[in-house]
Amino acid sequence: MLAAGGHSADATPETADLIITNGLVLTMDESRTARDAGVIVIQGDIIAAVGGEELLQQYKSDSLIDADGGIVMPGMINLHNHLPMVAFRGLGETNFNDRLFRVMFPLEKALLSRELIRVAARQAAIESALSGVTTVTDMYYHEDEVARSVTEVGIRGVLGETVIGFPVVDAAEPYGGLAYAERFIAEWKGHRLITPAVAPHAPYTVSPEWLNKSRELAEREGVPVLMHIAEMRNERELIARNVGALPEDQSIIEYLDAIGFLIDNLVAAHVSHVDDDDIALLKQRGVGVAHNPKANSRATSGMSPAWRMLEAGVDVGLGTDGPMSSNQMDIINVMGYAAVVARNEGEPDSRRLPPYDLVYMATMGGARALDMEDRIGSLETGKQADIIIVDSRAANMQPMHDPYAMIAFAAYPGNVRTTIVDGKVIVRDRDVLSVDLEAHAAEWAEVVKAVAEFAVSLE
Amino acid sequence: MLAAGGHSADATPETADLIITNGLVLTMDESRTARDAGVIVIQGDIIAAVGGEELLQQYKSDSLIDADGGIVMPGMINLHNHLPMVAFRGLGETNFNDRLFRVMFPLEKALLSRELIRVAARQAAIESALSGVTTVTDMYYHEDEVARSVTEVGIRGVLGETVIGFPVVDAAEPYGGLAYAERFIAEWKGHRLITPAVAPHAPYTVSPEWLNKSRELAEREGVPVLMHIAEMRNERELIARNVGALPEDQSIIEYLDAIGFLIDNLVAAHVSHVDDDDIALLKQRGVGVAHNPKANSRATSGMSPAWRMLEAGVDVGLGTDGPMSSNQMDIINVMGYAAVVARNEGEPDSRRLPPYDLVYMATMGGARALDMEDRIGSLETGKQADIIIVDSRAANMQPMHDPYAMIAFAAYPGNVRTTIVDGKVIVRDRDVLSVDLEAHAAEWAEVVKAVAEFAVSLE
Repeated sequence: MLAAGGHSADATPETADLIITNGLVLTMDESRTARDAGVIVIQGDIIAAVGGEELLQQYKSDSLIDADGGIVMPGMINLHNHLPMVAFRGLGETNFNDRLFRVMFPLEKALLSRELIRVAARQAAIESALSGVTTVTDMYYHEDEVARSVTEVGIRGVLGETVIGFPVVDAAEPYGGLAYAERFIAEWKGHRLITPAVAPHAPYTVSPEWLNKSRELAEREGVPVLMHIAEMRNERELIARNVGALPEDQSIIEYLDAIGFLIDNLVAAHVSHVDDDDIALLKQRGVGVAHNPKANSRATSGMSPAWRMLEAGVDVGLGTDGPMSSNQMDIINVMGYAAVVARNEGEPDSRRLPPYDLVYMATMGGARALDMEDRIGSLETGKQADIIIVDSRAANMQPMHDPYAMIAFAAYPGNVRTTIVDGKVIVRDRDVLSVDLEAHAAEWAEVVKAVAEFAVSLE
Repeated sequence: MLAAGGHSADATPETADLIITNGLVLTMDESRTARDAGVIVIQGDIIAAVGGEELLQQYKSDSLIDADGGIVMPGMINLHNHLPMVAFRGLGETNFNDRLFRVMFPLEKALLSRELIRVAARQAAIESALSGVTTVTDMYYHEDEVARSVTEVGIRGVLGETVIGFPVVDAAEPYGGLAYAERFIAEWKGHRLITPAVAPHAPYTVSPEWLNKSRELAEREGVPVLMHIAEMRNERELIARNVGALPEDQSIIEYLDAIGFLIDNLVAAHVSHVDDDDIALLKQRGVGVAHNPKANSRATSGMSPAWRMLEAGVDVGLGTDGPMSSNQMDIINVMGYAAVVARNEGEPDSRRLPPYDLVYMATMGGARALDMEDRIGSLETGKQADIIIVDSRAANMQPMHDPYAMIAFAAYPGNVRTTIVDGKVIVRDRDVLSVDLEAHAAEWAEVVKAVAEFAVSLE
């Protein structure tokens, strides 16, 4: 064993801000490099070196983390969420029929406030960090409050302010979200953790005119567009009712392309109801796809052919969807559902989405979908230090014959011991270090109480 | 707050062996009783009382567990597993094609030994206990070694010695498992934790003659019969090839009934390929069903209509299947997959298997399938004290609007803090108390090393 700070024959070791030793490192780089007894050197917010114990001759640090043989891998990317809805998690579960109108909308109408959004987003960001999510993609209201809480916890956020064709909590006029998004983007652009974005809700709630205004804002500012696309079984009917009927031979994807909406900056959530032509178009336009297999299959909204998109070269990542839809905030559990959805889509085939592909979607796939692959998604020199360490000694993580299979199919989110974002340790030994948890718990209790009191009226 | 051991006006409190206080108690009894600030009193291996804080006037104890507002519920029942296969977990995951013959059988042929079975079963029982499983149903070889390890860890086991029509590790002659089962049953019958059983492997590997010999043994001894039934898409072809073709109009279930094999003591695993007539027959004969939705959907072997069996009054519980099939040992994660399989079977309907039904299958459903509902499956006076406590303060367990929904859809297996079996605390604050973990780890490392060395030859 080499001691950190040991000297090689001819050089004084450089001082690093943080060194992780003794890791089973899955880099998720192009060559699928993995190594035992791996070492990662961090300078500031950046990965300075990835290698073996020889690095301990070149670098020393006062700040060492012994991974104890645990899996060291890129932090996971949750490509679709509605963080503040965690305040409502578990409500309306006994009957999904018309749940959106019977449960979700009344809850939001009665209870949404800056305060609830801020506190619930903090709660959700804490849960995300604990489960190894280092970047979360969000679509909701008052995204400046979400941004405040996400940065407080210290994870990375791609946060889209919602644009929708009727009045909502943070916009009295239809489509008022666009002006809100403009202000939000101006305020948060360039933040080291936050990528502000604009989030037109869906093709059936936003007119072509406002879709394109949203796209123009995104292109002008160089930020992402986030949208639900082809999620619902009856989405064509909904579009016909609210926006105007599509020609019979035009798919939803083709419609969006025809109006010029499909751009590289777009991340489309769900994309369950598409054919091979649609997939080719998504690939051609460079659209990223957020696949939410747990939420979609639980709600029976559709089995997305995400595995076929991946084969076609589309950038596909994994998302939970909101906490009322998948009930969990982690990407670890989503991987197993992704395998089940892929393998049972159309003609069943158990060879689809083997473990490496699942871990790829959870990391690099998400990074590519966000066009952030130069900064996050893999452990490579020069990238942001977004790193997690997963306990490999836990009973459920044994034996370690295939670490990718263990992450994809055996791990519990609670096996994540350490979460590092932008070079900062925000979870150590399963404790969140970045937030005053006691103060947060008091605020959270108030939110939960208010929701519980209102929820009685829903039954 | 009342102190334990406080006196009521007119009675001296009785001394109890263990008292759990401050629980969010889900009894899973017929009336679906749930209560905040619940108290459970344990005497020896038996639940002496379930109620509120008034019980603290009637009972005192030196042994108190403060549940801290956590969910207190019956221990979960894993209705189908092959515990020792945990030694092989993660192997052969990149290509499921012909995995049974390419990976599993060679591994078993080369490596199975009393030693591997004993050590791996202990590893699997530890993982089970940590995840809140208090009763595990197993089908494998050398079940006396499995029994030894399961009792050492201190969970309950329904353990079936395999009967199969070719030579295996513990029987040189075809069907030699039946004699082994006879000895095993004689040795372990009446053990406080173990229910020995006989496990004819499947309709396509066991002839009608030996199926009935197995059944006769079970009836004579009053023990369960465990078998894989209607698991495979091509099971009729397999039966035709190995046992003899069934008449075209006779289903597998009808065949088994025609030979007199369907009895109340039978627990059938999988049962994926059945119609309404088959389901009616299973109900009529009192057959229990072990539903393994994660394993079945991952391997694309079929979507069992377990929800329809439940509606028809069949006793259905949940299983993981072996660790090469679902890769996890807990029932918590299986509940989410059960919802997905049910809701997408045939014409999709998101109302199927709401949270209560999932928790029911995980507890009382399993108990009924095993004909053990008088002893386990719910928290009621006079039943065995098989109890778990689930952390409700963990970020992912908040908010607690609906505890059944949180257990079924939000919980991680690692949220289980405490596991009590037969009145004994075997896991406390996530630490296994019953086993010398260091000695076990050394034995386990040897097993893993041997498997890893052989596994290289499989690639």
